[in-house]
This record gives sequence, structure tokens and C-alpha cells, in this order.
Amino acid sequence: MQTLQTTSLRIRDNQLWILDQQALPQKTIWCPTPGVADLVEHIKTLRVRGAPLIGLSASLLLALLAENGMAKAELASSLEILRAARPTAVNLMNNLDRMKLALAQDNYVTALTFEALRLVEEDRALCDKIAAHGAQLIAPGSRLLTHCNTGGLATAGVGTALGVISRGWQDGRVEKVWVDETRPLLQGGRLTAWELGELGVPYRLICDSMAASLMAQKQVDAIWVGADRIAANGDVANKIGTYSLAVLAHFHGIPFYVAAPHTTLDPACPNGAAIPIEQRAETEVTGVAGSFGDVRWAPDDAQVYNPAFDVTPAALIAGWVLDTGVVTAAQVEAGVFQPAR
Amino acid sequence: MQTLQTTSLRIRDNQLWILDQQALPQKTIWCPTPGVADLVEHIKTLRVRGAPLIGLSASLLLALLAENGMAKAELASSLEILRAARPTAVNLMNNLDRMKLALAQDNYVTALTFEALRLVEEDRALCDKIAAHGAQLIAPGSRLLTHCNTGGLATAGVGTALGVISRGWQDGRVEKVWVDETRPLLQGGRLTAWELGELGVPYRLICDSMAASLMAQKQVDAIWVGADRIAANGDVANKIGTYSLAVLAHFHGIPFYVAAPHTTLDPACPNGAAIPIEQRAETEVTGVAGSFGDVRWAPDDAQVYNPAFDVTPAALIAGWVLDTGVVTAAQVEAGVFQPAR
Repeated sequence: MQTLQTTSLRIRDNQLWILDQQALPQKTIWCPTPGVADLVEHIKTLRVRGAPLIGLSASLLLALLAENGMAKAELASSLEILRAARPTAVNLMNNLDRMKLALAQDNYVTALTFEALRLVEEDRALCDKIAAHGAQLIAPGSRLLTHCNTGGLATAGVGTALGVISRGWQDGRVEKVWVDETRPLLQGGRLTAWELGELGVPYRLICDSMAASLMAQKQVDAIWVGADRIAANGDVANKIGTYSLAVLAHFHGIPFYVAAPHTTLDPACPNGAAIPIEQRAETEVTGVAGSFGDVRWAPDDAQVYNPAFDVTPAALIAGWVLDTGVVTAAQVEAGVFQPAR
Repeated sequence: MQTLQTTSLRIRDNQLWILDQQALPQKTIWCPTPGVADLVEHIKTLRVRGAPLIGLSASLLLALLAENGMAKAELASSLEILRAARPTAVNLMNNLDRMKLALAQDNYVTALTFEALRLVEEDRALCDKIAAHGAQLIAPGSRLLTHCNTGGLATAGVGTALGVISRGWQDGRVEKVWVDETRPLLQGGRLTAWELGELGVPYRLICDSMAASLMAQKQVDAIWVGADRIAANGDVANKIGTYSLAVLAHFHGIPFYVAAPHTTLDPACPNGAAIPIEQRAETEVTGVAGSFGDVRWAPDDAQVYNPAFDVTPAALIAGWVLDTGVVTAAQVEAGVFQPAR
């Protein structure tokens, strides 16, 4: 396959490399990803993360395995193993559905490579379109709040919610960004802070529990988040803490926007209650670990509850900003996300 | 002075020792506190913390300094230095007002010791009364959520909100406690988890951003928090993140209770906007530090916003549970917290 480089994916010498997002921003480590087990491990440990990026990395790996001679039957079973690596994000399933169609063709090696590279190109274009639509919604002088990481690290392009924010900044309409640190895995404190710093966008890092107090002080004009899955009724699964922000935004009369590519839509999923929520290890909550170090502060026998995602009901969302345009609550209620008949 | 021992304060050989709450639960370190500068440092670094406990430690130290021969004028200036150590918590000011009256007496050495020991005894009794009143509000089978640490570590007695919860548990009415970890300083994840473990109360530790999701799943029956100051209109200053919980509780129809001794009331403070909010060091948000280790994950140039407290308006509070009884919203509106005329 041709050489490829995004912020966090790289193909060189017919090998997939992923940028270890657990090591950022302290260390820049590119991890070789020769096989399916390697990528599943990278996904489960969040070395590769971001709903769009997970789908792309899985698709690229399948294409590379085909080019490197893996048999069709094994490719098919590999595809199913990858599909199960992350239950909440639907982009992975959507991308792999397209890869499965490519695998069904006679010239499946060429078809898989073509499809994987097309998915990467499409993702870049989707990000640009989301950013263009979203930036229209940003009023001059806005103080925006975001959660988790939805930028160039999470996609092949400029990102989803963070792409909107950086486009708004380039357009001169963003005064400041409040960045939720996003416990337990600190994607905000590590990754979004790093990306905004690199872009030169002024930001302030906060603990997740501080957002409400800022809203009460009228220091937040809008909230922008990404999505791991959007159900047919408009409910959104996203990083744990997103729902909390949506309720707080509702109480304070602050618009709450979800930015995502249309590949995050899951018309087959009727509502948020049907979205599986991944439960993760207790050690994520009893301490922190990364290239920066590894500490545990909770008592040895502490019991933990650690859902990786939560569900935000459509009623709390002011707009779904997709590559296809801004979808309103009225459109969602009229069924625009429902399965085609 | 006589020997004294609470969970986190100790007097031996006419010296004050404080249990280092930044070292818990990994290490049990008793710090000598010979002078005013030592205690101010312990307060600022949160080695001694909890609004009631801060007031008691300052009062005990003043009495010991008097017994050890400090001149009256220096005691007076020491009192003012201690008063300024923590701007948000009002118990410190209230206790020191009483110590100031004792200092004005001719036999001020005896008077200071008598008053400091009386404050300790009163605090124990206040905690018991708060627990008794509060436990009446707990329905059988309750799943309660709490924030920060308000137990035996924060007071001379059984605690405030956590005293209510543990009394409710002893009475057989508490099924489970959800413990917010309480970033940035992790008083929940370290101290409340440790206290509940010691008491044998079943709990689950969560990140602060997970509380909303639990409420949506109807897994929380009531929320109990302490207070650093209660204004005349019923507004409450407490650990950052408290306001967030109050809004979330309101949205989900869950009662939100504040438990505190009457020494937390500040009738001279008209409302929450008049309560000074302490801003703390950026390093608390860019990483974590304690006896468990010291790590930093944010980019080197990260800018931070770090208020230690927030203000919860009276309208979001279902009941103020004091040693004097449960105060209702109607009573607060009728002016029960207003200054006496």
C-alpha cells in the first residue's frame, strides 16, 4: 500500500503504525501494528482511540493483511474480531461493513485497499465539512467548552467537535476554549490540551466538576462534543461525562452541539437505551497511568463503577452537526435519522 | 493541656499533631505543629482540611501557644494570621471569634484552653445531633451519593454528611454509597473511600463525571454533602463540584441535602455571591500529587482554572440538616438564617 500519514496513523513499508495516545503528550511513540491481535490490544488500551480513527485503523489493517497474503477466510474472521473490539462506537462497525463488501469481491485484495484508502480520504473530507457547517454556529467572541478529544488525533482529518472549534478560531470567532480534563483517562487534559496548544488556540484546562460553576458565571457560550454513536431518535452515546454537561447546559440555557460524521449514525439502533455501554477496569478510577507515570490513590480494597460512555437524550441537544449539514431537533423528531424505508 | 485524640487531631505533651490527610490512605503520618506558620502551611496544603477541623486545629494551637508562654499581643496577631489561612470556610472565623473573646479575658491562658476544648467537645456533640436529624431523612434501601470528605477526618466527631450516612447505615437504611472521587485533590477517592471501608459501609467509587449517568439510571436516591459556608439566604459554598451535583439532582428530581453544624452559618453573608472563592495552584489540575506519588500529564504550557469551591443556590437544596434540626426551604425563605435583629 502507498505511504500514508495522518496525525495519528501511518503506513510505511506495507505496515500500519499507530501513534500511542496513552503516551501523549509526554512521549511520541509510534507502535507497530502487524496483526489483528495487536490492533485489538491497541484499541482496548486506548493507544488508538476516537470513534472515526478506530474504524479507519481496522480497515487499513485488513487491507494490509490482504496485501501481505492473508487468506480470504482468515480475513473474514479477522474482520469479525476487529468489529468486537469496541462495542459502543459504531463507526468501526460501519467501516467494517464496507470492508466486508470489498472482501466479497473476486479481486478482494485490490478492493480492500481501495476501500480502506477511500475511507481515510472520506474521513478527511467529512471533517472539513463538519467544521465548515459547525463554524457557522459559533458567535463572535465565543467561550466554548469541550469534553474528551475529538481533534486530529481522533480522526484522519481536522477532527469533529474540535475541528469545528479550531475552524471557528481560525475565523476569529472563538475567544477561549474550556477543556474538561475528562477523567478517568484524561483525553482532555492530555490530548485536547496538547492539540489546542499546537494550534495556538487559547484554552484553560479544568476538572470535569468545574464546568457547572463556569456556566453559572456565564463563562460558557456553547458546548461542543463528539459522538460514538447516534441512535435513530437522536440520542447520542459519547464519552462518560457528556450527559452531565448536556443536563448542565440545559439548566443554564446554553446550546449543546454534537459534531460527528454521518458514519456515526446508527439507524438500526432505535434509541440510547439500545446502545451497549462498555464497562472498563477498576484501575482507571483508583488511580492514573500513562507514560507520565503510574499512581494509585484509592484504598487497596476500593470497589469501583467505571462506565466508559453515557447516553445523552436527543431532547438536550441543540443541533447535530454532520458533514451533510446541521440537523435540528425538529428534523430529528420528523425522523431524519430513522432507517430508510 | 490534657491529652486529646480525634480521628485526625492529637494533643500530647502540650504539642498539637495533625494527621496528614494528603498522605492518606497510603500512609499514616502525624505532623508536629509547633507554630502558627506550621499550621497555616498544613491548612494551605490540605494536610489538615474539613471546615470544622480547620477551626478546631487553629483554636487548639492558640491555646497551646498561650500555655507555652506566648505573649498576649502575639497571640492576637497569630489569631489574625490563622483567620486568613482559608478564605471560604467560615467555621474557622466563627471559632476564632470565640477564641478572641477568651483572649480578651484577664486569665486568658486558662480561658483559651477552656474554650478550645469546649469547641472540640461541642463539635463532637454537633456531629452526633446532625447525624441523628439527618438519618431520619434516609428512606430504607437508599443508594446515597456524596462528594468530597465530610467524615471523622473533617471534624472532631463522626462527621457531617458522612456522619449522617454512616448513622443511616447503622440504622439499616443505606444500601450503598456512591463516592465521587472529587478532583482535583481526590478527597472522595482517598479519604471518604477509606473511611467507609473502615466503617464497613458498602460503597462504589466513581469519577465526578459519572454521577449524572447514575442519576439517569435511577441509581441515586439522595445526595448528601457538607458545607464550608452557608449564607443568610441559604446559598451554600462547598467543595468544587457540589453545585454540579445540585443541578443534576434538581433535573432528576433527587433530593439534595446539606449537612453542617450551625457554626457553618454566616448570617453576615447575604448570599453566595458574597462568599470569597479560593483559587488554587495550577499543578493540582495538571496532575496529581500525594504520598502515593507525583505525576503530571498535561502539556508543559497548559493554562488552568482551579477554583476550590463553588456556590449552590438555596433553590436547589431540599434541606439544611443542622445540629439544631432540619431546616426547610420555606424556613430559609422566611429568614431563619438571617441575622438576628
